[in-house]
Amino acid sequence: MNDPRPPQTHAAQQPGEAGLATLLDTLRASAARRDLAGGHAAAEKQLIADAGLLALAVPHEFGGRFGRDGTRWGKLYETIRTIARVDSALAHLLGFQFLQVVTVDLWGSAAQRANWLHGTVEQRWWWGNAVNPLDTRLIAQADDTHGKGGWRLHGKKGFCSGTAGSQMMTVSAQDPVTGNPVFAVVPTTRAGITVHDDWDPIGQRQTDSGTVSFDAVEVHAAEVLHRPDTPRASLRTLVSQLVLTNLFVGIAQGALEEARDYVLANGRPWVNSGVQRAADDPYLQQRFGEMRIKALSAAVLADRAAAILDAAWEQGDALDAATRAEVSLAVSEAKIVAHRAALDAGEQLFDACGARATHAALALDRFWRNARVHTLHDPLDYRLRDVGRYTLTRELPEPTLYT
Amino acid sequence: MNDPRPPQTHAAQQPGEAGLATLLDTLRASAARRDLAGGHAAAEKQLIADAGLLALAVPHEFGGRFGRDGTRWGKLYETIRTIARVDSALAHLLGFQFLQVVTVDLWGSAAQRANWLHGTVEQRWWWGNAVNPLDTRLIAQADDTHGKGGWRLHGKKGFCSGTAGSQMMTVSAQDPVTGNPVFAVVPTTRAGITVHDDWDPIGQRQTDSGTVSFDAVEVHAAEVLHRPDTPRASLRTLVSQLVLTNLFVGIAQGALEEARDYVLANGRPWVNSGVQRAADDPYLQQRFGEMRIKALSAAVLADRAAAILDAAWEQGDALDAATRAEVSLAVSEAKIVAHRAALDAGEQLFDACGARATHAALALDRFWRNARVHTLHDPLDYRLRDVGRYTLTRELPEPTLYT
Amino acid sequence: MNDPRPPQTHAAQQPGEAGLATLLDTLRASAARRDLAGGHAAAEKQLIADAGLLALAVPHEFGGRFGRDGTRWGKLYETIRTIARVDSALAHLLGFQFLQVVTVDLWGSAAQRANWLHGTVEQRWWWGNAVNPLDTRLIAQADDTHGKGGWRLHGKKGFCSGTAGSQMMTVSAQDPVTGNPVFAVVPTTRAGITVHDDWDPIGQRQTDSGTVSFDAVEVHAAEVLHRPDTPRASLRTLVSQLVLTNLFVGIAQGALEEARDYVLANGRPWVNSGVQRAADDPYLQQRFGEMRIKALSAAVLADRAAAILDAAWEQGDALDAATRAEVSLAVSEAKIVAHRAALDAGEQLFDACGARATHAALALDRFWRNARVHTLHDPLDYRLRDVGRYTLTRELPEPTLYT
Amino acid sequence: MNDPRPPQTHAAQQPGEAGLATLLDTLRASAARRDLAGGHAAAEKQLIADAGLLALAVPHEFGGRFGRDGTRWGKLYETIRTIARVDSALAHLLGFQFLQVVTVDLWGSAAQRANWLHGTVEQRWWWGNAVNPLDTRLIAQADDTHGKGGWRLHGKKGFCSGTAGSQMMTVSAQDPVTGNPVFAVVPTTRAGITVHDDWDPIGQRQTDSGTVSFDAVEVHAAEVLHRPDTPRASLRTLVSQLVLTNLFVGIAQGALEEARDYVLANGRPWVNSGVQRAADDPYLQQRFGEMRIKALSAAVLADRAAAILDAAWEQGDALDAATRAEVSLAVSEAKIVAHRAALDAGEQLFDACGARATHAALALDRFWRNARVHTLHDPLDYRLRDVGRYTLTRELPEPTLYT
Repeated sequence: MNDPRPPQTHAAQQPGEAGLATLLDTLRASAARRDLAGGHAAAEKQLIADAGLLALAVPHEFGGRFGRDGTRWGKLYETIRTIARVDSALAHLLGFQFLQVVTVDLWGSAAQRANWLHGTVEQRWWWGNAVNPLDTRLIAQADDTHGKGGWRLHGKKGFCSGTAGSQMMTVSAQDPVTGNPVFAVVPTTRAGITVHDDWDPIGQRQTDSGTVSFDAVEVHAAEVLHRPDTPRASLRTLVSQLVLTNLFVGIAQGALEEARDYVLANGRPWVNSGVQRAADDPYLQQRFGEMRIKALSAAVLADRAAAILDAAWEQGDALDAATRAEVSLAVSEAKIVAHRAALDAGEQLFDACGARATHAALALDRFWRNARVHTLHDPLDYRLRDVGRYTLTRELPEPTLYT
Repeated sequence: MNDPRPPQTHAAQQPGEAGLATLLDTLRASAARRDLAGGHAAAEKQLIADAGLLALAVPHEFGGRFGRDGTRWGKLYETIRTIARVDSALAHLLGFQFLQVVTVDLWGSAAQRANWLHGTVEQRWWWGNAVNPLDTRLIAQADDTHGKGGWRLHGKKGFCSGTAGSQMMTVSAQDPVTGNPVFAVVPTTRAGITVHDDWDPIGQRQTDSGTVSFDAVEVHAAEVLHRPDTPRASLRTLVSQLVLTNLFVGIAQGALEEARDYVLANGRPWVNSGVQRAADDPYLQQRFGEMRIKALSAAVLADRAAAILDAAWEQGDALDAATRAEVSLAVSEAKIVAHRAALDAGEQLFDACGARATHAALALDRFWRNARVHTLHDPLDYRLRDVGRYTLTRELPEPTLYT
Repeated sequence: MNDPRPPQTHAAQQPGEAGLATLLDTLRASAARRDLAGGHAAAEKQLIADAGLLALAVPHEFGGRFGRDGTRWGKLYETIRTIARVDSALAHLLGFQFLQVVTVDLWGSAAQRANWLHGTVEQRWWWGNAVNPLDTRLIAQADDTHGKGGWRLHGKKGFCSGTAGSQMMTVSAQDPVTGNPVFAVVPTTRAGITVHDDWDPIGQRQTDSGTVSFDAVEVHAAEVLHRPDTPRASLRTLVSQLVLTNLFVGIAQGALEEARDYVLANGRPWVNSGVQRAADDPYLQQRFGEMRIKALSAAVLADRAAAILDAAWEQGDALDAATRAEVSLAVSEAKIVAHRAALDAGEQLFDACGARATHAALALDRFWRNARVHTLHDPLDYRLRDVGRYTLTRELPEPTLYT
Repeated sequence: MNDPRPPQTHAAQQPGEAGLATLLDTLRASAARRDLAGGHAAAEKQLIADAGLLALAVPHEFGGRFGRDGTRWGKLYETIRTIARVDSALAHLLGFQFLQVVTVDLWGSAAQRANWLHGTVEQRWWWGNAVNPLDTRLIAQADDTHGKGGWRLHGKKGFCSGTAGSQMMTVSAQDPVTGNPVFAVVPTTRAGITVHDDWDPIGQRQTDSGTVSFDAVEVHAAEVLHRPDTPRASLRTLVSQLVLTNLFVGIAQGALEEARDYVLANGRPWVNSGVQRAADDPYLQQRFGEMRIKALSAAVLADRAAAILDAAWEQGDALDAATRAEVSLAVSEAKIVAHRAALDAGEQLFDACGARATHAALALDRFWRNARVHTLHDPLDYRLRDVGRYTLTRELPEPTLYT
C-alpha cells in the first residue's frame, strides 16, 4: 500500500472553515460504513490534503501555517478534535502527520528542516512513522556505503500509523552494538520498505496502524536525525500525548452529539416515564447532563494543556526541565479526564438512544470501540500515579516514553 | 429459516455435567468466530439439545427436569449463567426456551400443558416467540373457521429471539376491536409465518432476534392461551427478567475469566511498573479486585432473587400480590447490579489485557457489545426508580411489562 | 450580636499579597479550633477587613477595587477560593460581602449606589443579608410615615449569613397585598432588627447563618431597591452561585493540601505495602492523583465560568438573555464538578492519612462537613437536569432562584 | 474508668426479641445526644447486658448461646448489624465482646475455656482488650514470681476498645528477648492497669477505644494464652473483620432508614421539581434506589461470608488452610462493599434530606463520621489488592494481621 504519489492538487489549497466543513460532512456521512469496512481511507486522506491541513504544523518560515494568524498548538488540537468528533481514525492520521512534522522541526538540523518542511508544504506529503518505542524488532547496522554515518535497517515495527499511503516517514531502530536508538527520515518508497495491510482492530480501524518491514533499507547519513538533549526536544512526546488526548475529547463530544441527534430524531419516551417526549424524560436529561459535564471537563483541561504547551513552545531552546515537566503534568491531567470521558460517552450513548440504536449498520458502537482501542497506548494507572506522585511529593516527573 | 425438524436425537439424552462441559468447550472455541459472523447457530443449538437442556423448565410430571433432584429456578439460572460466560447469545436462546415453556406452564389449560409440555420433552422442541410487548404491529382478527374462539394474525413482530430454527412459538397480538391482547402457541411452521433473517446488531449476534411476519396466520381456539389474572401468572415477566440478569452475570464472569486467561498467558509488565510479571502489578491486581467484587455482588444478588422466586413458585396459586412484588424487587435489585457489572467487566477487560488484545479476530469486545445490546431492553433508570420508590414509600410495585 | 461599630482601622488598608498571606496563616492556625467552637468570628472578620478585602467588589469609580488593576470577577473568586482552602466559613462571609455589594451595584439607583458603595469603602462596612428566597416568613407592610414608598417589616428570615457583626444588610420581604417581593437595604442596627445566635450546623460553623427577626422595622422609601427587569440585573444569582462554586473548589484544594501535609509529616507505610515511605505507596499516589484531577477539573471550570461572567459583565445593560443564559450554564457546570470534588476530597483525605487522623482535635472532618453543609443550598440533581436539558434541546434555561 | 462491678442483674436475663427491641429504641432515642457528648456509655452497656447479649458467643456447653437454637455466626452478626443501624459505637462494643470471648474459645486451654467462658455467662463480664497489633509499645518481661511462665507487662496500648467498664480483658505484649508476642487474659482490675479516658475521635465516639497503660502488671502463668498454630486459631482475625463488616452494613442500613424517616416526615419537594410530594421526586427515588442497592449488596455479601465462616467453624480443628483462606476472601469481599456502602449512605443521606438536616443537634453526620473512623483500621486498597491477586493468580492469601 505504499503510495509514491503525493495527494493530487485540487482547487482548495488553503485551509479554511469552508474546506473543513465540507471535509466534516463527508467524513460524517461515511463514518459508519468505513468503520465496518476498515482498511485504507485513500479518498478521505485526499480530502484532508485538499482542505489544506497537511502543513498546519509546519512553521510559517517554511511556508506552513504554524505561527501565522494565531495558528499554534491550540488551533492544531482544535482541528484534530473537530475531526475526531466525526471520525477519530482520520483525525488520528492528521494528528500523527503533525507529530512527524514536529519531529523534523524539533530534532532536524537546519538543512533537514529546510528540506523536509519545505517539502511538506510544496509536495503535500503525508507522513507516516515506524517509531513505536515498545517494539524493539527493528535493527540498525552501520553502513558507510553512501558516506560516513549511514545505516541499514533490518526487521519490523508494529503500530505504524499512517504509513500506508504516505510519502515520507520517520523511523527509529536500535543499534545493537551500542544499544542506542537511531532516528531517521526516509521516503516511504525507499527500496526494501514494505507496508503491510495487517491492521484489523476492534476500533480506530482506518488508522493504517499495521506493520512495516525493512529489508536492508538504506538510511543516508543526511537522513539521520540527531535528537538534541534538551527539554525542548523532549516536547515531541507531549505533542503526541496531547494528540491522543484531543482524539478522546473529540470522541466524547462526537458521541454526545450523535446521542443528541438520535434522541431528537428517533427518541421515544419510556412507557412508565409519564412524559410525552423523550427529551422531557428527567433521567435522560440527567444523562445528557453527565455526558456534557465529562466532555466539557475534558475539553477545558485539554485547552489548558495546549495553552501551557504553547507557552513552553515559545521559549524555544531556553525551555528548562521544570517548565517541560509542567507541560507533561498538564497533558497527563487532561489525558486522564479525556480517556474516561470518551469511554463513558461511548457507552452512555446507548442508554440515551435505546435498543433500536444497536443495529450493526449504524455502527454507533464505534465511539466506544474507537475510544477503547485508543486509550490503551499506555495504562491510565501509571499516568494517574505520576500525577499523584507529583501532587504528593512535588518531585517533577522525568521525561519517559509516554510522558 | 423456519426449521420444521426437531433437533436430531443423539446419544446424550440426559443433561449432565459431562454434556454441559463439552458444550461449553465447543461454544468457547468458536465464540469469537461466530460473533464476527453472526447469523443462526444451528449446530450449536443442536449441541444444547443434545446436552439435554431443552426440558429443564418442564415440570417433572410432564417428563421434564423441573422439580426433580433439586432442579428449580436456582439450577436453571445457574445453567444459563454458566453458558453465558462463554456465549451469552446461545445462553439467551436457552433462557428464552425456558421462558416459553414457563408461559405454557403458567398460562396453559390442563390440556394445553399436557400437550405442549410433553411435546417439548418427547419431540425436543426448540421454542421461539413473537411477543415483544412494545411492538404493536401484530393484529388478531377473530376467525371462527375452525371453531369458536379462533383468530387470524396479520402483521409483524420485532425482537423475536429464538424463533429461527424453532418448532413451536408463543405469539401475542392485539385485537383492535377490544384493544385486548391475544396470546397463543402455534407451530413455527404454520402457514403464513415467515421468520426473517434480519437480525444484525452490534452484540448478541446469534440470538436470532429478527422480525417474524404473519400473513393471515390461523390460530385455533385450542391454541389460545388464557392468561389467569393471578399473581402467579404474572411471574412470567420475572422469570424473563431474571434470565436477562443471569446473562449479565455470566457476561461479567466470562469477561473476568477471559481477562485472567489473557493476562496469565500474554500479559507483560508495564515499562514503569517496577515488577517482573504482569500478575504482580499492583494496579492490575486492584483492577481484578474491582472486577471480582462487581461480578460477585451481581452473582450473589441473582442467587438471592432465584431463591426468592423459588419460594414464591412453590406457593403455586396461593401466591399473593405482596409476595409477588417482593420477587419483583429482588429481581430488579439483582438486575441493576448485574447490568453494571457486565458493562464494566466488558470495558475493564481491555485495561487488564492491554493494546494487543484489540485485534478484531479475538473479538474480545464481544463481552461489552453483548452486554450493551442486552442491557437496553428496558432502561436501568426506571428499574432503579422502582426500587427507590419502594425503599422510600414501601408501596409495592404493580406488575408491569418489565417488572 | 448586631455590631454597630465598623471594623477598626488598622495600618494595612490596602489589599495585598502580604495582608492576605498573614490572614491565611492566622485562619489556618485556628481553623480546627474555631470549627469545634463555632460561633461568631469577630477577630477573624476584623483581619479580613484589615487585609483590605471588603471593598474588592466595589467599582473603582466609588473608590473600590473592582475594575482597577485587572480586578474583576476572576480575581475576586480567586480570593474567595484561596481563603476557602483554609477556612471556607470565613471565605463564605467574604463572598457574601461581595454579593451584597453587587446587589447594590446592580439594583441600586445612582444615588443609592453612590451612597452605599462609597460608604462601604469609607466606613469599611461588613454587609449581611436576610434574603433567603425559600423562606417566606418576612412580610412587608406599606408604610408612608417617612414618605411615600416606605414599608414596615414583620417576621423572620433564616440562613442570614453574615448579618451578625455587620453594619449594613440587604433584606427581602413579601408584600401580601400584591404578592410581590420588596428588596431593601437597611442598617443592621435599625430598631426592631434582632440577629439571633441560633446557627449551629454540622459544618460551615462560623458563617453566622442564623435567623434574623424583624419587629415592625422601618424601611424608608430611599432604601428600597427597585430591581431592573434586565438580564444584567439577574446576574446577581449567578454571582452568588459562583461564590458557592469557588468555596467548593477551595475546600477540595484545601483538603488535598491538608492530606499532603499530613502524609509527608506523619504518614507511615502500610505493613503489607512493601515500601519504606508512605509517599512511595502506589495506591496512595493513585489516590492523590484522583484528588488532584478532581480538584483541578473543578478549578478550571470555575475559572472558565468566571471568565464568561466577566465577559458578560462588561456588556453592562446591553447584556442579552441568551448571553446571560450561557453564564448560567457555565456556572452550573462548574458548580456540579466542584460540589463533587469537595465532598470527595473531604472523604478521601482520611484514606490518605489513616486512622490517626481521626482525632477530634484535628477536626480534619471539617472539610467534608463544610462541603456537605454548603452543597445543600439547592439539589445537584436539578442543576444537572438543567445542564442536560440544554445539552439535549438547546433551549436556554430561564433565570430561576438558583440558576 | 475501670469498673470492677459486673453489670447488675435485672429481670430480663435471656436474650429475646423483646429485650433487643427495647434496647434499640433506647439507643436510637439517645444516639445523637451521645454522639455529641462522646465518653463512656455505662447505662447503655448495662442495657446490652440486660438484654442477655453478652454470652451470645459463648458455646452452649459453657452455658452460652452459641450452637443452641441455631445461634451461630450468622445470628451474632445479624445482632451486631441490627444494633449498628441505630448506634454503631455500641454495636462495636458488643462485637468486640464476642471477639474476646472467641479468643478464649479458640486459643484457651480446656481449663481456661471452662474458667473464663463459664465466668462470662455467670458473672456477665464485659470484656475489653489491649491487643492492637500495630502498637508495639507494650513489653512483656518474664517473671516467675507466681510460678514458671508468668510475665510482667510494662508500657501502653492504644485503640483498646471496650476496656473501660470491662471486668476482663485480653492483652498482647512483646517479649523483647525473643521478639515473640505474649497473649494473656487478665482482670481489668489487676493492679497496675490504668484505662485512660483519652478517646476523642470524630466518630465511633463511645467505643472507649482509648489508651491502656500497664505499670509492672502481673500475668500469671495460668493466664497466658498459647495460640495454637492451626488454621482454626487464625479464624479470630476473620471474626474480627466480619464484625467490622457488619458494623458498616448496619451504618449503611441505618443511614438509609434515617433518610427515609426524615424525608417522609419533613421532606419538601424542590421548587423546580414539578411534584407535590418529596417522595414523588424522580431523582430522590433514584437516590434511594442507589442507596438501597448498595446497602443490600453489602448485606448479602456479609451474610454469605458469615455462612462460609459458619461452615468453616463447624470443621473445628480439621479446618485446613485452603478453606480458611476462602473464608478470608469472602470476608474481604464483603468488607470492601460494606465499607463503600457505609460511607456513601452517610453522605447521600444529606442529599436526600436537604439543608435543614444539617442542624448539629440532629447529628445526622454521625453515620458518615462513624463509617469514616471505622473504615480506617486497615486500608481498603490492600484488601482489594488481595482479592484481585487471588482472582488473577488463584494463590490463596496467607493469614495476616488483618486478613
